[in-house]
Amino acid sequence: MNMQPKTLLQKENNFSVWYNEILKRAEILDVRYPVKGVYVWYPYGYKLRNLIYAILRSLMDKEHEETLFPLLIPKEELMKEREHIKGFEEEVFWVTKGGSTELDIPLALRPTSETAIYPVFKVWIRSHRDLPLRIYQIVNTFRYETRHTRPLIRLREITSFKEAHTAHANRADAEEQVKKAVALYKSFFDELAIPYVITRRPEWDKFPGAEYSIAFDTLMPDGKAMQIATIHLLGESFARTFDIKYEDKDGSLKYVNQTCYGISERCVAAVIAVHGDDHGLILPPGVAPIQVVIVPIVYSSGGKNGEVEKVCFAMYETLKKAGIRVFFDNSGDRPGAKYYRWEMKGVPLRIEIGPRDMRSNSCEFVRRDDGSRTQVPLVDVVSAVKRTLNEIQSCIAKRAKETFFANIYKSEEEPSTKAAHGIVSIFLCKSERCGREAEERFGISVLGEAIYEDEDARGRKNEGTCMICSRKAKRVYVARAY
Amino acid sequence: MNMQPKTLLQKENNFSVWYNEILKRAEILDVRYPVKGVYVWYPYGYKLRNLIYAILRSLMDKEHEETLFPLLIPKEELMKEREHIKGFEEEVFWVTKGGSTELDIPLALRPTSETAIYPVFKVWIRSHRDLPLRIYQIVNTFRYETRHTRPLIRLREITSFKEAHTAHANRADAEEQVKKAVALYKSFFDELAIPYVITRRPEWDKFPGAEYSIAFDTLMPDGKAMQIATIHLLGESFARTFDIKYEDKDGSLKYVNQTCYGISERCVAAVIAVHGDDHGLILPPGVAPIQVVIVPIVYSSGGKNGEVEKVCFAMYETLKKAGIRVFFDNSGDRPGAKYYRWEMKGVPLRIEIGPRDMRSNSCEFVRRDDGSRTQVPLVDVVSAVKRTLNEIQSCIAKRAKETFFANIYKSEEEPSTKAAHGIVSIFLCKSERCGREAEERFGISVLGEAIYEDEDARGRKNEGTCMICSRKAKRVYVARAY
Repeated sequence: MNMQPKTLLQKENNFSVWYNEILKRAEILDVRYPVKGVYVWYPYGYKLRNLIYAILRSLMDKEHEETLFPLLIPKEELMKEREHIKGFEEEVFWVTKGGSTELDIPLALRPTSETAIYPVFKVWIRSHRDLPLRIYQIVNTFRYETRHTRPLIRLREITSFKEAHTAHANRADAEEQVKKAVALYKSFFDELAIPYVITRRPEWDKFPGAEYSIAFDTLMPDGKAMQIATIHLLGESFARTFDIKYEDKDGSLKYVNQTCYGISERCVAAVIAVHGDDHGLILPPGVAPIQVVIVPIVYSSGGKNGEVEKVCFAMYETLKKAGIRVFFDNSGDRPGAKYYRWEMKGVPLRIEIGPRDMRSNSCEFVRRDDGSRTQVPLVDVVSAVKRTLNEIQSCIAKRAKETFFANIYKSEEEPSTKAAHGIVSIFLCKSERCGREAEERFGISVLGEAIYEDEDARGRKNEGTCMICSRKAKRVYVARAY
Repeated sequence: MNMQPKTLLQKENNFSVWYNEILKRAEILDVRYPVKGVYVWYPYGYKLRNLIYAILRSLMDKEHEETLFPLLIPKEELMKEREHIKGFEEEVFWVTKGGSTELDIPLALRPTSETAIYPVFKVWIRSHRDLPLRIYQIVNTFRYETRHTRPLIRLREITSFKEAHTAHANRADAEEQVKKAVALYKSFFDELAIPYVITRRPEWDKFPGAEYSIAFDTLMPDGKAMQIATIHLLGESFARTFDIKYEDKDGSLKYVNQTCYGISERCVAAVIAVHGDDHGLILPPGVAPIQVVIVPIVYSSGGKNGEVEKVCFAMYETLKKAGIRVFFDNSGDRPGAKYYRWEMKGVPLRIEIGPRDMRSNSCEFVRRDDGSRTQVPLVDVVSAVKRTLNEIQSCIAKRAKETFFANIYKSEEEPSTKAAHGIVSIFLCKSERCGREAEERFGISVLGEAIYEDEDARGRKNEGTCMICSRKAKRVYVARAY
């Protein structure tokens, strides 16, 4: 798994090539697996994935409990909810044989787990005391994608689908849960320094079986929007299908009111795509598998090298004890090769120590996000590292947000030009016909009506006439989309 | 998910009934899922699972890197290694359809991942500098079991298979890795307080494709042995099949030498079965989701209850801050119902506080493992809890070991009688014919030749004559087995 320096990549000019090269050179995913749309996580990529999901878990664990439901769903269960299955039936992988035996009932690989989980909710939920019930699982799910697949983004095996499922006594409680889920996902993406817009998806593009769907979209460097989270109010539809009732305080039997919400490894794709540059990954310190790399500057095998190594190793031990994820690169490679490698892997901070630094009892900090160099006294290293990592996290977040909002456009005319670069808000009525027509005419996708907007967005004129049919309409976000 | 007190269970008399009831009442697994051999992890069970696997991960992470490979294996890859596939072909689930389309190449759900991982090892490994390569993953794997399935033990979806795969420059290094894996697994089961024998499986019962297989077996309360870990020296067999070569220092190309080793959720089954009693689970404090439960003793809604609650809550906060997994049960249930619940769930230590305790500024510790009660001054609670949890861990381990070794028998005669209660060592030659004959005649399985034995076992006469053919033979362990 060694890596040779190669020519620089060009993120702006050809994002697609950049993205694939980064996954390979930074050792995130190996695409050389002989099945379409499924990939291998390299150890480094999987560490990044685990750190990102650790944040998600810690947020979820406050009010949800983690569970695990089976992968295999019997055909008859999957087919129960009519709207739901319409949305998935062409995308389902079917297990039809065990050994050489034909199975009596074909088993679906879960495309999502409503139909695996809700029959069990039916037996778990008896009384109002069992509510709210809030569970989640992080699992592999499967889609028979016929479109062009892309690592972490459009997959046949989604390896890391975090899906939450909740049941409540009434609709008000379920709606409250939707708000909580939105707040939770905001915290999550804020920690990843990933900017987003939140929209209510059009009626004709909601999750199959839901009353309404809310989605988070971020912007990729090629100007396309990427959906990174969805939240659905299911109401009573699945409860009626799967007969999930509880006994209320007055003894009456009522259907539960449900929500579900999910995040996949697209959150990892977003971290890679939003922050990286032509030199490779730029990882927010909060999720970087290696936060600090120490590189000794020793060119020949001459006298002072032993001392430099000793100081580096002592620093490594000190930082490790202080809870920093630190790596001491004492390999035989030249410093230039080491710089290349750790920049490619997005390590937020590099500390260089050479004989000259030794003489002044200091070292040099080199930041990955802006390349800036600072001389730091050895005695201050721990506090300086912590401070610098915090600064890097803030700077990465600020830069990402600026880029993002610079590419959110408002348009009274046709949105094609602006949509080449970002997300555009236009006036569009709620009808599917106008939506589909706009999508076709302008080569965009309708994301939906903006909700939970930032201050920035207030004061905009939000009422107008539909760009297609001229009836009364609200502003909706549109974009070319993944 | 509420639970009503029921009659006591009888672990010794009917282990099978006890086991199934415990899984339900302690909320480990729900068996009411409509596919044979697959089950649902309750939140409490999944917490236990996660704590057990956290120990395994921390041991693995010292010298292995975690990765993730795809679930789906193309038929042609799975079929490449002839010996290997012979062992699995009748047990493989096949995906044959995507949507309504017949797949060109059937895809297997991994029964184990050699054939998914080794084609990728071929491209990862180039030079001797890439070796040793040591990775692991924790994944769901699938077996089309036609035998009687049993939660955590014999499954169609193994939800938590930890499989490690290593590649080395030569056989000596691979053999060294086998020893390291044995040591690692010993540490793991020692932390779970699970006793074991380690055997070299007979030549005719090794892992398909391996040169030899080593296994850990523990003893279940019904006297049957359960395999809880396996370690395989693969040698060059898979390297030759998948063409995994490296360039050695002298420029020559050589095949790598491989090992693999695995542990499934049988480790959770072992913790449940080995330690539990007629009142429910008894969890070693190291893996108990709740280590301490605080129960206020307040019978009426009278005067002092508020104060008791206040003291309980302060204690809860203090213990939580000290890193203890503590739960304060201030539900409206009667104390008796609370005792039942937390005993069933195996919480190692219960702290009771009532008005009488308040007057003496103390509380009462009740140990789950032996039911003993101790009065403890409130000021000493943190240190007393830590000390007591350590004592409980040691006592559980000691008790399990004593029971285990009391049921390891040595026999010069036919082993049927003793094998009704445990593991028996008998003289058996290495031939498959004698092995199979012994299995059939005595209703047992041959585990194999004991290796890495404890002091206890030394000094035994280890050479004798085969019970079947009277040729020269060594002692091998046999037992009725899961």
